[in-house]
Amino acid sequence: MSIAHAYAATSASSGLGRTTVERREPEDDDVEIAIEYCGLCHSDVHAARSEWGTARYPLVPGHEIVGRVTRVGASVTSFAVGARVGVGCMVDSCRECGSCAEGLEQYCVNGMTATYGTPDRRRDGEVTQGGYSTSIVVNEGYVLRIPESMDPAAAAPLLCAGITTFSPLNHFGVEKGDAVGVVGLGGLGHLAVKIAKAMGAEVTVFTTSSGKMDAARELGADHVVLSRDADAMAAVSNTLDVVIDTVAAPHELNPLIRALRLDGALFQLGLPADPMPAVDPGLLVRKRRKYAGSLIGGIAETQEMLDFCAEHQVASDIELVSADQLNSAYDRMVAGDVKYRFVLDAGSLKEDL
Amino acid sequence: MSIAHAYAATSASSGLGRTTVERREPEDDDVEIAIEYCGLCHSDVHAARSEWGTARYPLVPGHEIVGRVTRVGASVTSFAVGARVGVGCMVDSCRECGSCAEGLEQYCVNGMTATYGTPDRRRDGEVTQGGYSTSIVVNEGYVLRIPESMDPAAAAPLLCAGITTFSPLNHFGVEKGDAVGVVGLGGLGHLAVKIAKAMGAEVTVFTTSSGKMDAARELGADHVVLSRDADAMAAVSNTLDVVIDTVAAPHELNPLIRALRLDGALFQLGLPADPMPAVDPGLLVRKRRKYAGSLIGGIAETQEMLDFCAEHQVASDIELVSADQLNSAYDRMVAGDVKYRFVLDAGSLKEDL
Repeated sequence: MSIAHAYAATSASSGLGRTTVERREPEDDDVEIAIEYCGLCHSDVHAARSEWGTARYPLVPGHEIVGRVTRVGASVTSFAVGARVGVGCMVDSCRECGSCAEGLEQYCVNGMTATYGTPDRRRDGEVTQGGYSTSIVVNEGYVLRIPESMDPAAAAPLLCAGITTFSPLNHFGVEKGDAVGVVGLGGLGHLAVKIAKAMGAEVTVFTTSSGKMDAARELGADHVVLSRDADAMAAVSNTLDVVIDTVAAPHELNPLIRALRLDGALFQLGLPADPMPAVDPGLLVRKRRKYAGSLIGGIAETQEMLDFCAEHQVASDIELVSADQLNSAYDRMVAGDVKYRFVLDAGSLKEDL
Repeated sequence: MSIAHAYAATSASSGLGRTTVERREPEDDDVEIAIEYCGLCHSDVHAARSEWGTARYPLVPGHEIVGRVTRVGASVTSFAVGARVGVGCMVDSCRECGSCAEGLEQYCVNGMTATYGTPDRRRDGEVTQGGYSTSIVVNEGYVLRIPESMDPAAAAPLLCAGITTFSPLNHFGVEKGDAVGVVGLGGLGHLAVKIAKAMGAEVTVFTTSSGKMDAARELGADHVVLSRDADAMAAVSNTLDVVIDTVAAPHELNPLIRALRLDGALFQLGLPADPMPAVDPGLLVRKRRKYAGSLIGGIAETQEMLDFCAEHQVASDIELVSADQLNSAYDRMVAGDVKYRFVLDAGSLKEDL
């Protein structure tokens, strides 16, 4: 057993404060990681504040983890001490169901073990603790290789925001010349733009904020549409193969579905707390369009995404924060005041002592 | 020019009454058909009563047409006089757009020419008149071969109800052992059951009516679920690959979407006049499920469906009616009192004179 320095919430209203967590000794198939960076995801805020179901406290958030291997178990062959690695949203799954067998561990029939806040099925239900910490021990099957060419801090958000947008684009089979729409320009949206561009797509960003139009173009968007502008929305009817919708608040879907071509699909990735408006089935019927969802990605696909991003020099735009800035960073995330992802410098967890 | 005996609505409230329509002389690429049978589709009722947009009167409904070829144009090689043929929901399309080039004429970018009630783009906008008539003249590219082994009256509903349910099953790639759900047991639903069974699927019927449970089993359903029974609905969670939803009134989608497995799709085929309830995006996200639509099928796929149905001895359960029973048949359709499709004996249009 070892002790990691960490930041945890102790109640829905506590905010985050300094603590320690115990990490197990690496078992035969485990990898021990000294965490360098951890991205701050909106899910972390929801979990820390118990806005999604009932959180188990103390809760150490963080599932966009990058670091270096410090120890490996006896049977580990894929990772050597010193290698740069990552951990995303899950640290285990049942490894037996059809989804796990297909490399779709995120859709594990028996439920994946999330990186934080989930009882660990292999350890008497001990609750997992995440990446706002100095180290973590993870089964090798759930550890990713981070190419050395990548900036480790900017790579961290790829582990959740990156794979969440890459997977539906990849699953849909987006290729050069396809037309991709991206709704919302936050942590997920800005990576969706970069990834879709790297796939060779023509990208249209939909935003409610005229202030984000220039930023969208700077990120590589070919077109930007103000989604409250009915004429502009009508002008893009029947033009897009796929729409990646990253907005996590209720919003009208029909104008976005109308933008899809024959056989196009809108993938909703955000989960609003309140119900979404209804979809007009006529829009689906008349062009065989699809309204779909997608959840992060499997381990193999996450590795594919990391290698793709390394090859195409795609990374997150980040603002690095230290541990003592975590609470203010949360407030700024809720206010949408970040371009485009906060990343915790895990070195500051020690300095903060 | 020739004169066909027909039944037409002259206003939204007129009901159907005896009339005649002019049919053009067959052009080089036309086929003239003596109509034997024409199915009665719910769309016919909506159109005749002007419940979908504004109908153009007089209006001769009917787009499930079976008959025999009486004359062919000089360049027609696919059809000979005497051959049994069919005409479905469209008699033309632009023949130039990408959808038409792909054999997806139903999704013609410039709009298909419906079998009735649509201005004919090649004839100065003269409005098309449908199959409640003794003859019709149609471009050979929009005429189907009806295998001689089929009962022509029972084959007629395949031209709309059959292809509307076959196409999404075919598009999804349903094969032996797949699990298919069918919602609603009317004209479309009863054919969806038969077609899915012929594809080798295990079929679950969802119905709101306990009185239809035995009927569903008689049609070949392996399982029947009363959709108001929450326990029974919960028991089929995560079990179906595809759901064919034929209900044309607003109804809850979430319990049906919950029945889909990973990567499953619900195809809604009916178009309720009132809005549908909202879909829970969490149900889509957590299993990468899809809520989709589908519109009839292309000409090549309609032929594929007819050949498939002939091979597997699939046909509609029908109740044959004569022209003077059309108005009462409409009332019975609205009341859901038909097992499962009315078919007009077109011979009665002459006898009625």
